[in-house]
Amino acid sequence: MQPSTIRTAAYPAAIFAVYVAIAMLLPAAVDLYYGNKDWQVFVICSIATGAIALTIAAATRGPLPMGSTQTTFLVVVILWATLGLVGALPFYTASLKLDLAGSVFESVSAITTTGSTVITGLDGLPPGLLLWRSLLQWIGGIGVVALGLFLLPLLKVGGFSFFRVESSDIENRPFERFVSFLIALIGIYCTLTALCAIAYAAAGMNNFDAVNHAMTTIATGGFSTHDASFGYFAEAGLPMLWIGTIFMLVAGLPFSILVLFFVRGRLDALRDPQIRLFLAYVAVIVVALAVQRRITTGMPFDEALATTAFNFTSIITTTGFASEDYTLWGPFAVTLAFFATFLGGCSGSTAGGIKSYRFLILGRMLLNGLKLLIHPHSVQALRYGKRQVEDEMQRSVVLFLTAFLASWVVSTLLLAVTGIDFLTSVTASLTALTNVGPGLGDIVGPAGNFTTMSDFAKWVLSATMLLGRLEILAVIVLFVPTFWRS
Amino acid sequence: MQPSTIRTAAYPAAIFAVYVAIAMLLPAAVDLYYGNKDWQVFVICSIATGAIALTIAAATRGPLPMGSTQTTFLVVVILWATLGLVGALPFYTASLKLDLAGSVFESVSAITTTGSTVITGLDGLPPGLLLWRSLLQWIGGIGVVALGLFLLPLLKVGGFSFFRVESSDIENRPFERFVSFLIALIGIYCTLTALCAIAYAAAGMNNFDAVNHAMTTIATGGFSTHDASFGYFAEAGLPMLWIGTIFMLVAGLPFSILVLFFVRGRLDALRDPQIRLFLAYVAVIVVALAVQRRITTGMPFDEALATTAFNFTSIITTTGFASEDYTLWGPFAVTLAFFATFLGGCSGSTAGGIKSYRFLILGRMLLNGLKLLIHPHSVQALRYGKRQVEDEMQRSVVLFLTAFLASWVVSTLLLAVTGIDFLTSVTASLTALTNVGPGLGDIVGPAGNFTTMSDFAKWVLSATMLLGRLEILAVIVLFVPTFWRS
Repeated sequence: MQPSTIRTAAYPAAIFAVYVAIAMLLPAAVDLYYGNKDWQVFVICSIATGAIALTIAAATRGPLPMGSTQTTFLVVVILWATLGLVGALPFYTASLKLDLAGSVFESVSAITTTGSTVITGLDGLPPGLLLWRSLLQWIGGIGVVALGLFLLPLLKVGGFSFFRVESSDIENRPFERFVSFLIALIGIYCTLTALCAIAYAAAGMNNFDAVNHAMTTIATGGFSTHDASFGYFAEAGLPMLWIGTIFMLVAGLPFSILVLFFVRGRLDALRDPQIRLFLAYVAVIVVALAVQRRITTGMPFDEALATTAFNFTSIITTTGFASEDYTLWGPFAVTLAFFATFLGGCSGSTAGGIKSYRFLILGRMLLNGLKLLIHPHSVQALRYGKRQVEDEMQRSVVLFLTAFLASWVVSTLLLAVTGIDFLTSVTASLTALTNVGPGLGDIVGPAGNFTTMSDFAKWVLSATMLLGRLEILAVIVLFVPTFWRS
Repeated sequence: MQPSTIRTAAYPAAIFAVYVAIAMLLPAAVDLYYGNKDWQVFVICSIATGAIALTIAAATRGPLPMGSTQTTFLVVVILWATLGLVGALPFYTASLKLDLAGSVFESVSAITTTGSTVITGLDGLPPGLLLWRSLLQWIGGIGVVALGLFLLPLLKVGGFSFFRVESSDIENRPFERFVSFLIALIGIYCTLTALCAIAYAAAGMNNFDAVNHAMTTIATGGFSTHDASFGYFAEAGLPMLWIGTIFMLVAGLPFSILVLFFVRGRLDALRDPQIRLFLAYVAVIVVALAVQRRITTGMPFDEALATTAFNFTSIITTTGFASEDYTLWGPFAVTLAFFATFLGGCSGSTAGGIKSYRFLILGRMLLNGLKLLIHPHSVQALRYGKRQVEDEMQRSVVLFLTAFLASWVVSTLLLAVTGIDFLTSVTASLTALTNVGPGLGDIVGPAGNFTTMSDFAKWVLSATMLLGRLEILAVIVLFVPTFWRS
């Protein structure tokens, strides 16, 4: 690892920070419009960030030695760490006066689209800060889609490459195709957000709430402008919940396939096996729990179905909205909520978690392995759709799962040793690692708030959220000594 | 699958049941000696079992078509299911009058060396029944050692074959070597039990308690003759706990290596990497928790160390004794207890759980995988000690882990849907699957008792214990349709 590598990694982060500085002017404008003096804070943060970022960019500017795997890993991690720190600036300096650990936690929770919060009294917060939270999630959402489609597959860390999806066309003018794909991607991300905002507004949200919730829905982030989350819109009834459910589901789909679908009208792309598994486990969990609730409580089935669909699609897509405290629905619901926290959406979506394609490959590996036990000399090919899954991909899934479980254990123990109770430790670390948002128990459950946690716990959870968002492996390679040897 | 296969599988089970019928005469003799009328129950059970077993043996007798993988799987499962059912007979018919679900639960918990119990008032139980519980665990213990050394590696389900350990000598007269090895194995199992009993008696147990606890210690079973488990011997002080700790640790070692050590004096066999990892994680967990307890409570360090060592070695070796309710030691202890439940001992021991060699291979896979991410074209060999781990072994570990997690989820959901709270569901299924014994919460925790659980829950847990004891894969292959096709 040469010093030039670190220089090379710092440059993209600095350039990105300039864009974030510009983004800060949006909440400044909103606060100015609503007459809140926090607009000055956003302007000052913007200028300071912009100035420092431009200085670093100028200092590290130079030819980019592309192609080194190490550099790419370092770029990814530094980029996200920078976004987390810069994003925290307004929380730390604005009228809210969060402490450092809290500010970074809130910012990291936003950019990783986790959605856990340390802020109480969201309903009374200045509109600029509320918008900043949503905006960070929205930026984090498109960031992770890009990461999942372009960078992580290149690094063999996970997911299916955009280049695979496009394999038939890519040989001609790859760069032009890449740029047009990127533009289509951003276009669809914005369009979906706009559609979601319009639907929310039509169902009864005011415009500000509709825009904020649309941004955090499509990002599968889950930040709300109200302490009660979607419970605040209870009067709007079940349609509001169904709108949220549908847009969360769409945001859990691979954006590469949404591009093919919307831009080229290719419906067959939706036959991707990971999509079918994702929709299948959402359907099975929602229907099973809705039926169980109908039977045990006697509530109307349409209500049971809508509330279950909303709150559990929210968990599975790693969004984290809640329309009520579903942990009061009984042991079966709590247990399902726990296991649903692992699942996640599709690769190349804004969702976190283990993700459906990994379960698919693990499931096939299990079935093939069992068949091999019975007929030791048979040959079992592992298929994903019509394609054969290479050994490399299988290894990568196992690698992720092992790293995932190990990270979960370490994070949980770090929380527990500070005296946080078992259920909170074990689910707070899990919900951070999968970027879901709520865990179980009074503190981190859907009706709780992370604010009472110690600074140390907040730092541990911030690190865990980043770890989870970068598919774990992209971060822990930095801790392997081999990484730093030339 | 031909009818002849099922016939072939029934024969060994019937023969084995004859031996179990003979073993029933031991508690009969004890009850007769102590003047308890349950001796008649044991004699009747013995005659009934013997008569039925001999009839089945006569009916299924014939040439054994060896070598079929399917037959071997079926033999293993039928053998253990038979032992579970026959073992339940005295619980069902004796003065205790357990119901069917409870009797089978108690018997399966015994033969799988789990050690969860549905019996309250152990202190007042007739000696014959107490001995029967210990005896079943002891038989289950040697059974699982034989399974782990001879059968499961042959089926590629897990563990290291006895034939591997012996690889240098095995080419000459394999059968003779096998028989002499088996005799040495049984000899060491009995010797260790005797030594443990003598040590317990010397530390203050009466002879009956010493023999019973020695049998359940070496089997890493954890059944006690007192409701308070080792809490009953509190007056004997710390030496009693250290004796238990040491013998549990020994029972967590591979018996194949104990044979080499004791019979041939080959100390180098103890350098097996799985042993080092097993002893390392026991040491790290015990010392970390003892230091934390010393600091937070100010208790004497020797007491903190002894009580931590006993209760946590008990969990890690999947024994399940408790000297007190360690779930009252705070969140760090509870969290460690939860994660320790997964660990287990060495392959070819009486311990259950995931086992240290699997963690070793997973850890190496993780490290190699990370290095491959950094240097994609490097070649990373996976070593276990000085030997290279073949792909087949790696696949087998991944297969086990996947099946383990899937079984845990299914078992937990089955418990939760009946209304059992989340913590109980999730830890009861885990502790059954790893054959540890105690879980977390009031019902299944170290101070609890499984008796209040519904019949359905008891059946689910009985199935889960069997599943875990047979390394999961040996059972679930039976549910793959391919298995039953000719």
